[in-house]
Amino acid sequence: MTLPAERTPGLRPDVGRLTISCHDRPGIVAAVAGFFAEQGANLIHADQHSSDPEGGRFFMRLEFHLDALESRRQELAALFDEKVAGSFRMRWQISLESEPKTVALLVSKSDHCLLDLLWRRRRNELPMNLAMIVSNHDSLRSDAEAFGVDFHHVPMDNHDAGERQMLDLITSRGIELGVLARYMRVLSSRFLERAGCPFINIHHSFLPAFAGADPYAQAHQRGVKLVGATAHYVTAELDAGPILAQDVVAVGHRETVADLRRLGADVERAVLAQAVKWHLEDRVLLDGHRTVVFR
Amino acid sequence: MTLPAERTPGLRPDVGRLTISCHDRPGIVAAVAGFFAEQGANLIHADQHSSDPEGGRFFMRLEFHLDALESRRQELAALFDEKVAGSFRMRWQISLESEPKTVALLVSKSDHCLLDLLWRRRRNELPMNLAMIVSNHDSLRSDAEAFGVDFHHVPMDNHDAGERQMLDLITSRGIELGVLARYMRVLSSRFLERAGCPFINIHHSFLPAFAGADPYAQAHQRGVKLVGATAHYVTAELDAGPILAQDVVAVGHRETVADLRRLGADVERAVLAQAVKWHLEDRVLLDGHRTVVFR
Amino acid sequence: MTLPAERTPGLRPDVGRLTISCHDRPGIVAAVAGFFAEQGANLIHADQHSSDPEGGRFFMRLEFHLDALESRRQELAALFDEKVAGSFRMRWQISLESEPKTVALLVSKSDHCLLDLLWRRRRNELPMNLAMIVSNHDSLRSDAEAFGVDFHHVPMDNHDAGERQMLDLITSRGIELGVLARYMRVLSSRFLERAGCPFINIHHSFLPAFAGADPYAQAHQRGVKLVGATAHYVTAELDAGPILAQDVVAVGHRETVADLRRLGADVERAVLAQAVKWHLEDRVLLDGHRTVVFR
Amino acid sequence: MTLPAERTPGLRPDVGRLTISCHDRPGIVAAVAGFFAEQGANLIHADQHSSDPEGGRFFMRLEFHLDALESRRQELAALFDEKVAGSFRMRWQISLESEPKTVALLVSKSDHCLLDLLWRRRRNELPMNLAMIVSNHDSLRSDAEAFGVDFHHVPMDNHDAGERQMLDLITSRGIELGVLARYMRVLSSRFLERAGCPFINIHHSFLPAFAGADPYAQAHQRGVKLVGATAHYVTAELDAGPILAQDVVAVGHRETVADLRRLGADVERAVLAQAVKWHLEDRVLLDGHRTVVFR
Repeated sequence: MTLPAERTPGLRPDVGRLTISCHDRPGIVAAVAGFFAEQGANLIHADQHSSDPEGGRFFMRLEFHLDALESRRQELAALFDEKVAGSFRMRWQISLESEPKTVALLVSKSDHCLLDLLWRRRRNELPMNLAMIVSNHDSLRSDAEAFGVDFHHVPMDNHDAGERQMLDLITSRGIELGVLARYMRVLSSRFLERAGCPFINIHHSFLPAFAGADPYAQAHQRGVKLVGATAHYVTAELDAGPILAQDVVAVGHRETVADLRRLGADVERAVLAQAVKWHLEDRVLLDGHRTVVFR
Repeated sequence: MTLPAERTPGLRPDVGRLTISCHDRPGIVAAVAGFFAEQGANLIHADQHSSDPEGGRFFMRLEFHLDALESRRQELAALFDEKVAGSFRMRWQISLESEPKTVALLVSKSDHCLLDLLWRRRRNELPMNLAMIVSNHDSLRSDAEAFGVDFHHVPMDNHDAGERQMLDLITSRGIELGVLARYMRVLSSRFLERAGCPFINIHHSFLPAFAGADPYAQAHQRGVKLVGATAHYVTAELDAGPILAQDVVAVGHRETVADLRRLGADVERAVLAQAVKWHLEDRVLLDGHRTVVFR
Repeated sequence: MTLPAERTPGLRPDVGRLTISCHDRPGIVAAVAGFFAEQGANLIHADQHSSDPEGGRFFMRLEFHLDALESRRQELAALFDEKVAGSFRMRWQISLESEPKTVALLVSKSDHCLLDLLWRRRRNELPMNLAMIVSNHDSLRSDAEAFGVDFHHVPMDNHDAGERQMLDLITSRGIELGVLARYMRVLSSRFLERAGCPFINIHHSFLPAFAGADPYAQAHQRGVKLVGATAHYVTAELDAGPILAQDVVAVGHRETVADLRRLGADVERAVLAQAVKWHLEDRVLLDGHRTVVFR
Repeated sequence: MTLPAERTPGLRPDVGRLTISCHDRPGIVAAVAGFFAEQGANLIHADQHSSDPEGGRFFMRLEFHLDALESRRQELAALFDEKVAGSFRMRWQISLESEPKTVALLVSKSDHCLLDLLWRRRRNELPMNLAMIVSNHDSLRSDAEAFGVDFHHVPMDNHDAGERQMLDLITSRGIELGVLARYMRVLSSRFLERAGCPFINIHHSFLPAFAGADPYAQAHQRGVKLVGATAHYVTAELDAGPILAQDVVAVGHRETVADLRRLGADVERAVLAQAVKWHLEDRVLLDGHRTVVFR
């Protein structure tokens, strides 16, 4: 069951998004644009990418306006499937701006990424239906509740039991995206499969440098002159999933490990918020284990 | 007369670019993409932008492959005009990757922007037919000639006579783009009109801050913590033309005016090279006095 | 009366800071370092700057450890004045890390700078004794109170009456720094004089570009490719005070004025927090209307 | 034998630099500054750093002016050793701005780092006595000679013979710094020991990510959103020496491996030039396998 939950204000009715990926060949754009013109839709934005003009994959994101889209959605999807998608063997998806994705935030003890996401949602920067916050600690409950969000403390001392409880929450609430906002426990591949939705994690280094534990201590030890953060989709292999966003900040010999943590925290929250926003707006497509991000 | 001049290696045959701007309304993309599909062309890239989905202007850039494009260009243009461009009242242009624009570089005494452009051209980063370098000083002649480029010393002590001489050079060589690579004389509006081609200038500040003379001294005096550079099209009003690219570098209390000049020079050459590359690849469209840059 | 207020945890006892500015001449560092060595102090950090090695001004910041500093402060200051400062005609000041400055935050309706400062203070990133928040609107009261900070609504419909009320608050609470965290009313020079403490403002543009009202609309209109923010000390002349920190973010033709505001907000809060932190740590010295920032 | 070679114009006479590292303890700055005051020297700049105020190492760099420094250098050094350095067990070094370091540039086929260094030296940005360019290919000879620099082609088909020849050149020319400006052969630890001078290398990735061969292809494969460059001292372990400087540039799904190479080249030349400048100005001290860089 998806909770009705509150709606993000400012979302436009009758605005849809289509994302496509398929084998590249001539005529795709003409077929897609022709279809939408026939339906009387107006294209607001269109982005496309070919991984290789000769024999690569083709990716597209359309933002369109169509009167009465909410009621015509099923019909539109069926027609598109029949008239366009089938002949190009497309993987595709239509979503509505007025129906933001249902999201769960997972967090441990660090508050910076969580608070930044909550604050951006309150400012209407992040179009999401925020169903709940889940944490393996109880320490951020009052922050969550100050923003009016359901908070669930799911201890992970018994990892299997914890994952089972989390899985119940996620599947019963119709979660479409999980965000690991500095959630410091590794999720099992079994959990990821059963949850049935993507998870975005923020890793506190410029991956693939300093994967694993305590990257700021590793960075200080190596004497690097930049520290960074990486937002990536979670896969069964630790810190190896497709990268959505990365950024860095300059550091020098004066900065201690504690300074790197403080400076890095600003990069982490910015990079995670950016990645989540892109995902919520259907701007991210997968090209193998790389991402195509239509900004 | 356009000199045949040397060709940039690595330019793909049969690859064309179409740029369009027109009043926005439904059906444009379908009409354009449909036309190219009918012609048997394959779209390599497509970018579009609406300044306002309701009643704004529409901008588009297509990169396409069409067999025998070089010989079919006239026919293609005529067909496009008849079948598509007319009904949408488009301003449009088709260019061929295999026919790079003919360019003149204008320079005074500072060498950094000029040398960077010459070096990038040698590396085949800048697809241009470089016809000549014009300078109001003779000091960079040997640098120009080391790169095998025609050098013309046109003194500007008599400004009118100088502009007349420069105009002769520009019109007789079929120049399609002039680049002011730290050319420190103001060009008259009369000259700009008669030259009949766009000019890109690099201004050594983050415009609109510090327009006019000696921006680094102005910046030092004001105590700013960043200095920058701005590449813009030249218009009759000094330092007020449409901006193509800008960047900045951090500075502090230790930097003298000379340091700002040194650090700024790196930004200037990078920003100018970027802007020139975008223009040469037909990535820049004008939206009033603002630019649309399809990167 | 300075309220005792809560103390920032993690502040080191027995750690002091000395800032100096004077006419440059040989022997200053030897005299200062010799004095501290005699007193048995250990230098933790030392930074110095000469605006011009020949006849300029000299600036210095020392961070030192001295046993029982809290009780020996008066004696140390008197000795330093007698033995060192007098002969070099220094402007100088000694402060204690264990006695953070008493601060008032001024805010209007935008929450991003205020919340960021409150959050950083909670994380112990900003060593300050936060006495109160003053606003010309009542809308951020609950946010302020959620962080346990006194909130005063001082309407400015009658500007003179409002300034008088604000002045009472500031002088009665012993405020040593005022921070304008998107406070949108101009403070009169009379107010600034009587308040007797510095004020740091965040201006939402890269000054000196786009001073005055609605800088994001101005920036969009001009078509710049970067928007920025500037933290500066407030002086009687609007947006013209000494600059502490600046930063920018890249924008393009797709960004609307609303997008510039959203992207700029992130830069504003980062730049303001940086400037406030530097001031609180006595890292900023004035060199005429420019700043020396010892990071 | 050190060749007299040409001198960098603009180098100030009577200006010296002292660098120090030693175990941290009270009184160091007072002793050093007192010594220079006694000698009648004026401190132009002073920077210091303690890796840990309690029991760490202390690092210092002084820039000073002393009349007739060139003739008093030996005497000054002897006095400093006797009066100051000994009792603090300092590692220290005095150098003169008027005696820039003798440098060899090593290069393979890529021209961008080499040309940038040559151009910056011509602009007097890099105070060095450039003795020669050594390459394992002959292709950049004419570029080197256009800048008036000795060029030696030392093939490395026989690696041992090549290193022996290079060693002869380096030791016979009194080389004090070797710069690997995209020199693509690994230098043996035997060579490094015998050469007796430090070498700075530019690696075309953000180390420790993508050490080893073809980092841009590795980066593209992993789908990172930033590519970078790292300047580091060469040690026997490949790509693991102390880091002097790093920077990155944003990339996305559109960039091919060739684009990463092109964009990365700009970062490489900037980062290498920065690192070399810092080394030439004695701004870099070693703290184990980390660097202290006094900018």
